[in-house]
Amino acid sequence: MSNKIKRSYIREILDATDVNTISFAGGLPDKELFPLKQLSKASKKVFKNSDCLQYSKSQGLESLREKIASIYTKNLGFFTSKDEILITTGSQQAFDIILKSLDLKQIIVESPSYIGALGAFKILDKEIIDFKKINDLESLLNNSNILYAISDYQNPSTNVYSNKKRKNISNILNKRKSILIEDAAYCFLNFKNKVKTPISKFYEESYHLGSFSKIVAPGLRLGWIRAKKENIEMLLAAKESLDLHSSTFNQMLIDEYLNDNDLFSHISLINKEYKNKMEFMAKCFKRYIPSFKFKKPKGGMFIYGSFKIDSMLLAKEALKENIAFVPAEVFYLNEKSNEARFNFTNASYKEIKKGIKKLSYIVDSFEDKINS
Amino acid sequence: MSNKIKRSYIREILDATDVNTISFAGGLPDKELFPLKQLSKASKKVFKNSDCLQYSKSQGLESLREKIASIYTKNLGFFTSKDEILITTGSQQAFDIILKSLDLKQIIVESPSYIGALGAFKILDKEIIDFKKINDLESLLNNSNILYAISDYQNPSTNVYSNKKRKNISNILNKRKSILIEDAAYCFLNFKNKVKTPISKFYEESYHLGSFSKIVAPGLRLGWIRAKKENIEMLLAAKESLDLHSSTFNQMLIDEYLNDNDLFSHISLINKEYKNKMEFMAKCFKRYIPSFKFKKPKGGMFIYGSFKIDSMLLAKEALKENIAFVPAEVFYLNEKSNEARFNFTNASYKEIKKGIKKLSYIVDSFEDKINS
Repeated sequence: MSNKIKRSYIREILDATDVNTISFAGGLPDKELFPLKQLSKASKKVFKNSDCLQYSKSQGLESLREKIASIYTKNLGFFTSKDEILITTGSQQAFDIILKSLDLKQIIVESPSYIGALGAFKILDKEIIDFKKINDLESLLNNSNILYAISDYQNPSTNVYSNKKRKNISNILNKRKSILIEDAAYCFLNFKNKVKTPISKFYEESYHLGSFSKIVAPGLRLGWIRAKKENIEMLLAAKESLDLHSSTFNQMLIDEYLNDNDLFSHISLINKEYKNKMEFMAKCFKRYIPSFKFKKPKGGMFIYGSFKIDSMLLAKEALKENIAFVPAEVFYLNEKSNEARFNFTNASYKEIKKGIKKLSYIVDSFEDKINS
Repeated sequence: MSNKIKRSYIREILDATDVNTISFAGGLPDKELFPLKQLSKASKKVFKNSDCLQYSKSQGLESLREKIASIYTKNLGFFTSKDEILITTGSQQAFDIILKSLDLKQIIVESPSYIGALGAFKILDKEIIDFKKINDLESLLNNSNILYAISDYQNPSTNVYSNKKRKNISNILNKRKSILIEDAAYCFLNFKNKVKTPISKFYEESYHLGSFSKIVAPGLRLGWIRAKKENIEMLLAAKESLDLHSSTFNQMLIDEYLNDNDLFSHISLINKEYKNKMEFMAKCFKRYIPSFKFKKPKGGMFIYGSFKIDSMLLAKEALKENIAFVPAEVFYLNEKSNEARFNFTNASYKEIKKGIKKLSYIVDSFEDKINS
């Protein structure tokens, strides 16, 4: 830990952007789809009770924990009780809470992996080791390290672990006895509204991370950890040392929202819109930058692919022209890359078209330079 | 860092209490004084802009940072710009952010000190050394450690540093070059609405912590760090690794509330009510438990004093009878104590009377045992 810790490239980009920037960089949901009216209506009820502004319990609001537990039981086929849920200030906070509570130094991550997790691991001075293939896990995992995995629409790669892969990973875990942190921030964002069973169901020493950021709204900063009761209790000291508890008001707001609204209808609406936007962006790429190679994702919020040129140089040049995207180098521990991540949910259709078209000129001038 | 970290005794009490408990334990403000209607009104305006539910910048909302900076400049006589403010998820989060950003192992704290800070320091594996007299600081402080000080209505002791003491401490700091973390969570809660100039004004390498918890509402979990610009920038990596940023909605809510309401009129109202409640609790102690010795505080939310008996044993016995207060042992690093902290802001007048009266019977039976 030192003052030489680098900020996340993405957060720096977000801070650097302004109204003139077309941003494909952050993992920002489409704000047009936020249930603004429904939450506003819910807030009126919440404001009738002054407890909404008071301190509350470290583990989180009981009725909200019950609702989250019921999502596991009913929608993920993973029986869960309210005692197995800890509410966090965004899913991001879960990394710090879990890592502080476990006396383990080494974390195994997929390559590439989520930049926010890598940042949290680095700041706690953890040793990070990456893997490219599931088969490598057999030799890497042991009972004194942690596996960090993103099973659904992996950020950034957009890959989904098949049921066979999940079974394979849980078998290795049961044999090798590592701790599992399974990040499921995107698990409900399947364009066909299908969900897969978490690996955590098949492995007891697991922490399954969820979030309201992608399915309700990120600005409320509410996520959760799902783990067995004894492990949740072990996390409470770290949670309370961080911020005592997550915002009482925001917890009551989402709880009230869930009382009056069908979350999964809302998620269906998000998935429908996101699929359309993804298809549109894919079309723009094929038309304007055919040299950018990618596989269309089945869910999530990103298109991930590969340029023929250094994506870091391209990203820096693009930012000068007010177009932001993320060069994949920042998702790797120590590797150059031509890959890049594009968010398709934040920008409007008009901006997507304008942005990709404008980017195509920059790509062309780069390719010209290389070919000349 | 290990899974043997103990939870805060206070948070455990708070979790253990129910509707039947009369609680003098937590630092809970009087919820009757929350500006519920004003915040509800502010929320209607906030909900008109879907940005309130979106991700936002790590340092915090610009207009809210401007308002906080202006409180420093106008009300504390400490010139401050928005670039010198970082919004945190409650003042509690500031400890983790600052400690992760500084590569310093040792922290000097007053004895007794704030339990939430001690918890945050312990979980980050810091070496904590306590002092009882300001004069001891001269030999303890050096350029590789941190002084943690609570200048106003110290929690738990309720002491306020005089202007002379503040000058004295800043002189020592300027000479010895430690980092200062000055916790000012209670600085505006003076019963006569007077404020003292922070030590931080006279020492550049300082982090001054503020909070909306005591002057607006704790359930929104919003506080801030005031430091020079270069130091604020150094904190951003730690802040974003924790929760990306504090709740956008809650920041916009308080910002909007401050647009339409005079914060310091509201604080005056709080101070008037708190003085009355403090005087009432003091009267109850004198009437029912005259053996409890204390000095009436000039502000804040607590009465701190000393029993003739072991306050930890008393607190445990009292909790069985549904009365909660905090035995001072938990505020010391490693010391037995007869002292205890009583919060007077959370309970109603009726509960204060009932609670202290009931506690007097328990105290009597303890004293009888000792004398028999």
